[in-house]
Amino acid sequence: MYLTKSFIPILKNNPSEAKIKSHQLMLRVGMIKQSSAGIYSWLPLGFKVMKKIEQIVREEQNKIGVQEILMPTIQSSEIWKESGRYDDYGEEMLRIKDRQDREMLYGPTNEELVTDIFRASVKSYKSLPQLLYHIQWKFRDEVRPRFGIMRCREFYMKDAYSFDVSDEEAFFSYNKFFLSYLRTFKRLDLTAIPMAADTGPIGGNLSHEFIILADTGESKIFTDKEIFKVSSDNTKVEKKSLEDLRKKYEKFYAVTDEKFDKKEFENKVIEENRLITKGIEVGHIFYFGDKYSKPMGASVDLPGGRKDFVKMGSYGVGVSRLVGAIIEAKYDDKNEVMKWPISVAPYDVSIIPMINKNDNTALEKANNINDELIKNNIETIIDDTDENFSSKIKKMNLIGAPFQIIIGKQTQDDLVEFKETGQESKKLKLEEVIKIIKEEKVKN
Amino acid sequence: MYLTKSFIPILKNNPSEAKIKSHQLMLRVGMIKQSSAGIYSWLPLGFKVMKKIEQIVREEQNKIGVQEILMPTIQSSEIWKESGRYDDYGEEMLRIKDRQDREMLYGPTNEELVTDIFRASVKSYKSLPQLLYHIQWKFRDEVRPRFGIMRCREFYMKDAYSFDVSDEEAFFSYNKFFLSYLRTFKRLDLTAIPMAADTGPIGGNLSHEFIILADTGESKIFTDKEIFKVSSDNTKVEKKSLEDLRKKYEKFYAVTDEKFDKKEFENKVIEENRLITKGIEVGHIFYFGDKYSKPMGASVDLPGGRKDFVKMGSYGVGVSRLVGAIIEAKYDDKNEVMKWPISVAPYDVSIIPMINKNDNTALEKANNINDELIKNNIETIIDDTDENFSSKIKKMNLIGAPFQIIIGKQTQDDLVEFKETGQESKKLKLEEVIKIIKEEKVKN
Repeated sequence: MYLTKSFIPILKNNPSEAKIKSHQLMLRVGMIKQSSAGIYSWLPLGFKVMKKIEQIVREEQNKIGVQEILMPTIQSSEIWKESGRYDDYGEEMLRIKDRQDREMLYGPTNEELVTDIFRASVKSYKSLPQLLYHIQWKFRDEVRPRFGIMRCREFYMKDAYSFDVSDEEAFFSYNKFFLSYLRTFKRLDLTAIPMAADTGPIGGNLSHEFIILADTGESKIFTDKEIFKVSSDNTKVEKKSLEDLRKKYEKFYAVTDEKFDKKEFENKVIEENRLITKGIEVGHIFYFGDKYSKPMGASVDLPGGRKDFVKMGSYGVGVSRLVGAIIEAKYDDKNEVMKWPISVAPYDVSIIPMINKNDNTALEKANNINDELIKNNIETIIDDTDENFSSKIKKMNLIGAPFQIIIGKQTQDDLVEFKETGQESKKLKLEEVIKIIKEEKVKN
Repeated sequence: MYLTKSFIPILKNNPSEAKIKSHQLMLRVGMIKQSSAGIYSWLPLGFKVMKKIEQIVREEQNKIGVQEILMPTIQSSEIWKESGRYDDYGEEMLRIKDRQDREMLYGPTNEELVTDIFRASVKSYKSLPQLLYHIQWKFRDEVRPRFGIMRCREFYMKDAYSFDVSDEEAFFSYNKFFLSYLRTFKRLDLTAIPMAADTGPIGGNLSHEFIILADTGESKIFTDKEIFKVSSDNTKVEKKSLEDLRKKYEKFYAVTDEKFDKKEFENKVIEENRLITKGIEVGHIFYFGDKYSKPMGASVDLPGGRKDFVKMGSYGVGVSRLVGAIIEAKYDDKNEVMKWPISVAPYDVSIIPMINKNDNTALEKANNINDELIKNNIETIIDDTDENFSSKIKKMNLIGAPFQIIIGKQTQDDLVEFKETGQESKKLKLEEVIKIIKEEKVKN
């Protein structure tokens, strides 16, 4: 795609209202535009990245056998009164009256709604486990929305819910999501650490937050450095293998500040391994047993004729927030270089031809190279403006395609100047370039 | 996927509250579940169909060069006051106050928001045309929601917007969407007729509704039967070719009741060609010039230094509504047989093994066949219950995969009983079955 045809409104300088680097870059390079306090529109560049993240999240949910549904954004207050959360939830819930004066709300979370769906259809233990997820817009009426899409009001989330016949089976479900989340974040080229966490307004007594390290994070974290060595590569979606994975992580102290205990930290972690830093929450999983199924009457028949309330958990990943989290992790704001992981990059390659007003040679070469790349399913953006080289590189470093191809007048037909964004360039044959990019894409 | 593992809650009988066949089938076969008046959750079966429709709509938008963005569901009232529609819109707009007592609303449409995005970034005629679309949930607070997802409150739509420098260029954009819509509906196996229509609260003076014929439709339509012979197959995305296409359609009388003029109808259409019937609106396109750009100050620099307000159009397709529209067009409710167009079918094939309690032979054969089909990218659902044959066929006829494979004990290894859903079966080799399905899939 030609840059001049795309809707990528790039600003010359960082906008002064943005305090953290993801917010700066996203406004600077036209990924988002604020429409009102804490509410954003996603422009083509930001939209492309978010959609790719969404698709990876979806694929990893499907892989552990979760079925996709879609619940609406607007809910009736009735079910929230049944669970008892309607009064508890506080002002972050956006409460609405419709034209008939019925009390409605914009869903901040969906435990009630999914329990209502479950209880209407599932009556027997034979249909369990049931794992359902959806990816939908949610709303939390933050009193001080800030940091762009990192702490906004309308945001895009994947929420999954599990229904099981017993605690034991429910932990199996919980552990499936535990693994699935590690795999998801890995595909996004993020190192996320599961940490014991508070359950807050969701409830329950078992919960992990998945945190990536970042100076600008809002969560303070305390952990043993050794935890970064744990790998889930050989874990299978089987009870024992999943339990072992959780044990491997839980051997190490890793908590957010709500769970922090200085004495315990110092007892459990030797001094040189203590890491006190900040992080960004990108996922959160909860086990809360019958907290919702009991008040809402979601029970199933057990073998032998007894009935019992189903055991539930919920599992969230912030899809829109991950766009910002990846920027926080990857953006070199000093040098103004962004290199997206190829799995979610808006384009695989930027093509940068040096165009003089009266000479289209370089642009024609760019078009020919582009045709070859498209044949190989490589997505490109071509800077077809007649700006100078340094201005073009500057823009493309912000857009963040992980590779760049530079075409000068003297570019020979069979050799192109190729580089990883932010690195040194080298002269390569186009076939070699294609091979490098395809190999990189296959890894994800 | 095994039927017993899927979340497809099938009802024995039609629910009494459903008055039209799409609503009946969708509740009956667990595609949707009502969560409150006019608001539905989409269960896996309905969700799969809607997602496939969404993807076809998206691909056809991309083909004419529209760029995808995503605007939020909640908007500020400010921009609606700028355009003058805040007071006009009436009670169908869901008005909301946030915790700071700011006036917000759940977007019923997005002309204001997209104009605000445009005016912040685009300053010169050189960047035109700009064509932007998004696919997002919208809300209209219907006073009497009914007919399931056909006239509900929260619904999923594709909305596109065009920005041009002149009327002439704007008509070119309008005509691109005109063609794109015909192509979209064709891929959904629907015959949609573009009809001159009123512009309603969107405004402007040029508008077409795309209507499919259905007895349960809410639009009364008056047309010349000859219009069904018009084809867009050879139309190209070029000014002249697109103009010719519109002329070919506009030669024939075709209007909805708001535009109906008895005398004109009888003058223009010979008696045997007059068709007065009902239809369902599945798309609507509008040209409204500077209706929004003028009050909101969205202007661009023209060659020579003059400025002018951009000329805009908007283009909507009801993605969630199309699920119902396809059912209205395709469901044989007397015989309770649904056959989805393969382009949007939740599964390509139902596999129906005859299972006795103590004999797994047929299920094993089903699994082997399933493995072969999956290798060929054919999506299946296997009825792994031990119900009797007629009950299984009944269910699978409602689920509506366009093909069925029946496996009895006596099924020979190399011949399977294969049929189009609702038709007679024949014995075929599995390779032949795979060939038939693949050919059918390629057509779309």
